[in-house]
Amino acid sequence: MRITALAGGIGGSRFLRGLLRAVPDAEVTVIGNTADDITLHGLHVSPDLDTVMYTLGDGVEESQGWGRRDDTNVVAAELAAYGAEPQWFTLGDRDLATHLIRTRMLAAGYPLSAVTEALCDRWRPGVQLLPMTDDRVETHVVVAESGSEAAGGDTGGERAIHFQEWWVRLHAEVPARRIVLVGIEQATPAPGVLDAIAAADVIVLPPSNPVVSIGPILAVPGVRDAVRAAAAPVVGVSPIIGGAPVRGMADAALTAIGVPTSAAAVAELFADLLDGWLVDTVDAAAVPAVESVGVRCRAVPLLMTDVDAAAAMARTALDLAEEARAR
Amino acid sequence: MRITALAGGIGGSRFLRGLLRAVPDAEVTVIGNTADDITLHGLHVSPDLDTVMYTLGDGVEESQGWGRRDDTNVVAAELAAYGAEPQWFTLGDRDLATHLIRTRMLAAGYPLSAVTEALCDRWRPGVQLLPMTDDRVETHVVVAESGSEAAGGDTGGERAIHFQEWWVRLHAEVPARRIVLVGIEQATPAPGVLDAIAAADVIVLPPSNPVVSIGPILAVPGVRDAVRAAAAPVVGVSPIIGGAPVRGMADAALTAIGVPTSAAAVAELFADLLDGWLVDTVDAAAVPAVESVGVRCRAVPLLMTDVDAAAAMARTALDLAEEARAR
Repeated sequence: MRITALAGGIGGSRFLRGLLRAVPDAEVTVIGNTADDITLHGLHVSPDLDTVMYTLGDGVEESQGWGRRDDTNVVAAELAAYGAEPQWFTLGDRDLATHLIRTRMLAAGYPLSAVTEALCDRWRPGVQLLPMTDDRVETHVVVAESGSEAAGGDTGGERAIHFQEWWVRLHAEVPARRIVLVGIEQATPAPGVLDAIAAADVIVLPPSNPVVSIGPILAVPGVRDAVRAAAAPVVGVSPIIGGAPVRGMADAALTAIGVPTSAAAVAELFADLLDGWLVDTVDAAAVPAVESVGVRCRAVPLLMTDVDAAAAMARTALDLAEEARAR
Repeated sequence: MRITALAGGIGGSRFLRGLLRAVPDAEVTVIGNTADDITLHGLHVSPDLDTVMYTLGDGVEESQGWGRRDDTNVVAAELAAYGAEPQWFTLGDRDLATHLIRTRMLAAGYPLSAVTEALCDRWRPGVQLLPMTDDRVETHVVVAESGSEAAGGDTGGERAIHFQEWWVRLHAEVPARRIVLVGIEQATPAPGVLDAIAAADVIVLPPSNPVVSIGPILAVPGVRDAVRAAAAPVVGVSPIIGGAPVRGMADAALTAIGVPTSAAAVAELFADLLDGWLVDTVDAAAVPAVESVGVRCRAVPLLMTDVDAAAAMARTALDLAEEARAR
């Protein structure tokens, strides 16, 4: 069975780990979000690709869901001692080696897809990991000029900051007025992306942030159309449980695009693509609303408390895909 | 008193530390060798500048004379786990932060002299540290093609390798046929270099490698002429004691340029510049030979067993300069 998944970071990676346990013989291709890539201290960091690679390659720090297990921060402390900015994003020492290699290979002319393949030679994640694009795309968040809202009156001033600054430094606590995918119009899908979508037996949207993880992947010109046109059933897993994101601050990102933080509202975002959608049991009441937009929906436990729980979710998602195919 | 010194790595740095103890109120400018700079894992490494900066800034690992005190090698181990080359040069974690900042600033368009100044803002070495040039110069060593000499016959094949590869990987055990300073003809002295030479009250050549440390600095077009033309007396300290280098493998480098490994022979290399030359007491017999080429010479203990010993050497060098001035 060929499964193609679109994935962001932590939630997507944990779901994928469950998927590999559920169907170890499946041929899985993961199309990873690269719009939250950022250059830090001159190094090209691809947080989502690395989270997938480390998680599936058994190298992730489980306690936080990202970064390298048992990492240290010697280099980061030294950079801070030099006063090097930014200091709100800490690159661990082990993790840093990955970014050094990526940066060096990119500088030598290799596309990000080739770099990702080379890095995966070490990690052997058990999937083919593809960046959504080899082109530079950056999610920027438009916020009010510092102080203009706090001063009691919106002066209209605003500025765009890199998604990571909004997410990591500001904890998404400053309201996002708009989310802009810089460079997306010129981006083309990385080699293999459209083929993996067209050739899939099942297409999966794991429980990743719908706005800043799945959203950018689908926004690469040609990708959303390819998913819509694919013969395979498309099933997704809600990242929202009981009106709140399971992790991260997806609510802030949804608010920015005017979408309620609910399992049903996220399904609606992808209604043109979805054949099936899983919501958590606490959101069972949302099932009729999802089905009313033509998406088969089932309420099951969605908390990935361990790999077995994630595997059970993955099995249900694949069952739902089978039902959709048989329909 | 304005003192200008030309310096390589370990020997030069230890001498300079003694100099600062001997004359704490002196205004010292150090012109550092950059011809053994190397790009490793995409990072611009300036071994000699860093050794001066760390040593005078009280950050050096005393046990080896270079690198950062109590450094760790987490990143290097990870790079090796990826199979990243070269693996014969290990960058410590703390040290790596310096290279990250240097590389980032160079990429942003700052010249190496500005980068060095920025790094010294943290280390406060107590001297003005100038790279010999902002241009790229690399010492390459021409060696026989691997195996051609071992095979019993010189096939004539040869290749040029970066100095660091010859020095660090091959331990200078492969005979050097020639030493080439790639880029030296096009290089210009960094801002401040010629001024520091012209304005000096004393010019010092510390006990650094004459071929690959002092040599490249003097080879930057204009520098040797400036030293020769300077009003200040020029005094040097032999890096050779009893026919052997105090540290490093200066003998191999001297052999490559056809110069005997002796305190007198090194003085002759710089005879057009020197007013005074210190040799070790074991080389007292060399004093007449040095003086015969017009260089005032004195035999004193030259082993820098501690900072006080280095300070005593520095004091003697300055005394010799005074004598030369009074002559």
